[in-house]
Amino acid sequence: MDKIYRVNMSSLQCSVEPVPTPWAGLGGRALTSAIVAKEVPPTCHALGENNKLVFAPGMLSGTTAVNSGRLSAGAKSPLTGTIKESNAGGTAAQVLARLGVKALIIEGIPKGDGWYGLHVNSDGVTIVEETELIGKGNFAVIEALEKRLGKTGVLTIGPAGEMKMLAANISVRDIDGKLRSHGRGGLGAVMGSKRIKFIALDGEGTTAVSLADSAKFTQAARTFAQAIMNHPGTGQGLPTYGTAEMVNIVNAAGGLPTRNFLHGQYHDNEKISGETLRETIIERGGNPSHGCQSGCVIKCSQVFVDKKGKYVTSGLEYETIEILGANAMIGDLDVIAEADHLMDDIGIDSIETSVAIGVAMDGGVLPFGDGQGVLRLLREDLRAGTPLGRTIGSGAGNVGKLYGVTRVPVVKNQAIPAYDPRAIKGIGITYATSTMGADHTAGYAVATNLMGVGGGVVDPLKKDGQVELSRHLQIATVMLDSLGLCLFIGFPSADDPTCVPAIVDMLNARFGLELTPEWFGGLGITTLKTERAFNQAAGFTSEHDRLPEFFREPLAPSGAVWDFTGDEIDQFWNF
Amino acid sequence: MDKIYRVNMSSLQCSVEPVPTPWAGLGGRALTSAIVAKEVPPTCHALGENNKLVFAPGMLSGTTAVNSGRLSAGAKSPLTGTIKESNAGGTAAQVLARLGVKALIIEGIPKGDGWYGLHVNSDGVTIVEETELIGKGNFAVIEALEKRLGKTGVLTIGPAGEMKMLAANISVRDIDGKLRSHGRGGLGAVMGSKRIKFIALDGEGTTAVSLADSAKFTQAARTFAQAIMNHPGTGQGLPTYGTAEMVNIVNAAGGLPTRNFLHGQYHDNEKISGETLRETIIERGGNPSHGCQSGCVIKCSQVFVDKKGKYVTSGLEYETIEILGANAMIGDLDVIAEADHLMDDIGIDSIETSVAIGVAMDGGVLPFGDGQGVLRLLREDLRAGTPLGRTIGSGAGNVGKLYGVTRVPVVKNQAIPAYDPRAIKGIGITYATSTMGADHTAGYAVATNLMGVGGGVVDPLKKDGQVELSRHLQIATVMLDSLGLCLFIGFPSADDPTCVPAIVDMLNARFGLELTPEWFGGLGITTLKTERAFNQAAGFTSEHDRLPEFFREPLAPSGAVWDFTGDEIDQFWNF
Repeated sequence: MDKIYRVNMSSLQCSVEPVPTPWAGLGGRALTSAIVAKEVPPTCHALGENNKLVFAPGMLSGTTAVNSGRLSAGAKSPLTGTIKESNAGGTAAQVLARLGVKALIIEGIPKGDGWYGLHVNSDGVTIVEETELIGKGNFAVIEALEKRLGKTGVLTIGPAGEMKMLAANISVRDIDGKLRSHGRGGLGAVMGSKRIKFIALDGEGTTAVSLADSAKFTQAARTFAQAIMNHPGTGQGLPTYGTAEMVNIVNAAGGLPTRNFLHGQYHDNEKISGETLRETIIERGGNPSHGCQSGCVIKCSQVFVDKKGKYVTSGLEYETIEILGANAMIGDLDVIAEADHLMDDIGIDSIETSVAIGVAMDGGVLPFGDGQGVLRLLREDLRAGTPLGRTIGSGAGNVGKLYGVTRVPVVKNQAIPAYDPRAIKGIGITYATSTMGADHTAGYAVATNLMGVGGGVVDPLKKDGQVELSRHLQIATVMLDSLGLCLFIGFPSADDPTCVPAIVDMLNARFGLELTPEWFGGLGITTLKTERAFNQAAGFTSEHDRLPEFFREPLAPSGAVWDFTGDEIDQFWNF
Repeated sequence: MDKIYRVNMSSLQCSVEPVPTPWAGLGGRALTSAIVAKEVPPTCHALGENNKLVFAPGMLSGTTAVNSGRLSAGAKSPLTGTIKESNAGGTAAQVLARLGVKALIIEGIPKGDGWYGLHVNSDGVTIVEETELIGKGNFAVIEALEKRLGKTGVLTIGPAGEMKMLAANISVRDIDGKLRSHGRGGLGAVMGSKRIKFIALDGEGTTAVSLADSAKFTQAARTFAQAIMNHPGTGQGLPTYGTAEMVNIVNAAGGLPTRNFLHGQYHDNEKISGETLRETIIERGGNPSHGCQSGCVIKCSQVFVDKKGKYVTSGLEYETIEILGANAMIGDLDVIAEADHLMDDIGIDSIETSVAIGVAMDGGVLPFGDGQGVLRLLREDLRAGTPLGRTIGSGAGNVGKLYGVTRVPVVKNQAIPAYDPRAIKGIGITYATSTMGADHTAGYAVATNLMGVGGGVVDPLKKDGQVELSRHLQIATVMLDSLGLCLFIGFPSADDPTCVPAIVDMLNARFGLELTPEWFGGLGITTLKTERAFNQAAGFTSEHDRLPEFFREPLAPSGAVWDFTGDEIDQFWNF
């Protein structure tokens, strides 16, 4: 029987609750947003006792469906002040799903200065005081817990989360004992505010989740996997080059943020391209194509090794590569990979932090291109929480405020990732309107603007069709985020007519339902409106659905400007 | 003939313009807010080229009316994101008024890295490159300009303004060659963003402003001065103890913020009281009663000297004394006076900075009560702009964000001054609803809540009548801020029936008008609504008219909580 685990850190008590009817059919983002919207006062302090941290596996997590193991984390974000859902791969979603835990809700704040670990198993949750691992980086936590507890699922925060840095993330143990991250929005600070260093998830004794119609599920799951493998994006591009394939695509489109969003092309793009990344990894004996969760058939991740073949990092994404590589002008994959490793270990969002570094460079804190300076900043300042480290760790918006920088690429105080919205206007609409602050994953219009996904190309430099595109994608993305599916399922979903019906069939076969594809549209719309209502009650208006003023300046070399009016952007919400 | 001086820092050109009809009858805050609302895009970056910095003398400035020499500065605030008016005493308003300058509007931003000084005289404005004074503190600037130019009026920014710190202020030379400040809202950062180090105001060749009816003016001015001197507040309390008279009054009421707003009474209140301040100054041969502008009859300022009789600071206000003394628990007037001097010299708002220090203490940056640590922080970090200095200099809200503190006393990101709104609820309504962010001077309900000003006392601990009180005071305060009158004129205005008619008579006699007292009410209402409309267009909603969540916790020893609902607060705007 599905249940909800609730942990009250004020009273240090745990309970197991039945799933209320309105939440019974939900999972992932649809569920975390429903819970946060119902139980968290929108105007509360995000690091105070009234915020709650909610984890929910996707509706298909725990099944044999490929790429279905993403875990959603939700709360009020201390970075943006909005509602937040951030999802990650790794192993935790599948364990929670097999335990029958629809959601783990953590509320309250303990009185004293102690730290705690949560132990989740089929009996419920146990809160245990923790001392040994406090102050430790994420890799050390995962390693120590493996020794202590065996290969359980782990959610953990690093020093950044302990220090409640606004860009702190929550990391998830992956299948290799490394990690993946709930990166955006500072959810690691929320976990730190509740004084929880880690959550160990013990799936001992559980089996695969039950299926209402096993034969139907197997058939649909096969069709689904085939659709992913047949698509050129998920079957060829991503497995070959990882997300770093975007470096040359976005550079060619003139939308590659360079020198803190001053230019749209980077002269050293080849040094950081997906092609170079792949060659480097192969040459050194790393792994160029690697999955973040069991059952992944895309394998857009990789294992990056140094010149001696020693492990440096995995899950080195386009966004991190681009923002450090071109935007901070450090055209050096070794430095970028090392920085990625450090950010993972410290437990800080690599997108927010990298954009913050670009703003800091613009503010004169260190020179553009100073890769060793960035590594020193991460090692010495971020990890220790020096005033400079806390400044960077509080995100790009705050760095801009502290250093009087006017070119600050944020929406709702969350950093704009590695696509300049002047040259790829569809993603600009997503940045502006997303309920989460600037977030490319909320509605990845780049695929349609630049890669022809979804059939008819929407011209990246023109306004026509962008609002409708972003709206369609944001609604559809809620489906993926709620099912526990990886974002890239959006590619075959858009292009292969067998894909969405197979997803619907899997869900129906899992739960014995008779849902239609239209049901997902409704779920997307409901969830977006729920999230927006939370934000409005927290004080957000349409004036916050705007890009920063500097995007009105022309972007070299195309000369493109961000030319949407407020009224045009606000059409997004006409549904 | 009255005129407007306009300076464009992008083109480095200056012009003299006639006063448009809608602005002809305005001055001070009514005029700066009208200009900012008309000319500044509400969503612009406050440190970008689209913001404008506007100075306007009060409508009575330049006359012989006592206490009429306050200058208003207006802009979009980089600290709050709202419209901002901040006024100061000193000598500048009177020079500008005698020059016939209704407003000085500074717009644009220069291309390069150069710094400039503006020279204002009867011919207009000249922009001159400046190198010698860059990096210098405010006292050195004023001294150097006296040598260079003689005793002109001076507006200047210190290192904080040059570094565009969000709490940077603009200082005004006072009659003793010391300074007063446009303290709140970071207008010094706006001046710094325009790369203007100082503005020298040369009144050479000007005489007193013309009067339409000299005899009537003289008679009214006499009545006005008499009303001020007859009132126990402005005639006795303030001249004797300065604003520090409030220490014991507010402590007795249990609303004296202590240990970052944790308690409402301070055990060492006598160490920092107005009585102790006065005794200390007299004992050491300082001046316990001193005016900030020529023609001041209240003289609530003082000259604080050290044990050897050497000048330390003047204009040492209750708010600074209280926030450093009780809220940061540094019960030592010598340390507080030295800190005040340093903040004046660095050019940073002593309220915002002192509250930020309290939050930093709560965040573990330095211990409560560490006076020497505070002085070191100001001398070494603030002045040099180290990362820690920039953190403190960016205000209490940002310190809270960087150090994960939940007890952060700000409204619209501006620090709440030295009155706890739980125990003095009227001032809480002003904090919540002021168009400027938390600001006690926007509607000083403390006087009615605790001192009986305005007749019938409104119980500080009850909700009854507080919304109406704050509304009445905020409307009336616009009058004072627009006339160039000191805030304390509010005391005789409320209690002496001869005072407001005398003000109206002075204004009518100055300009040949036939205004009524009701006209001022209309001006107050129009100005508040103009300011609010700007804020709404910048994205502010009623959800921003709220006090921080922690004020729902009981305040020791009274146990008072902030218990206004949102709907009750929103009644403020029903006019």
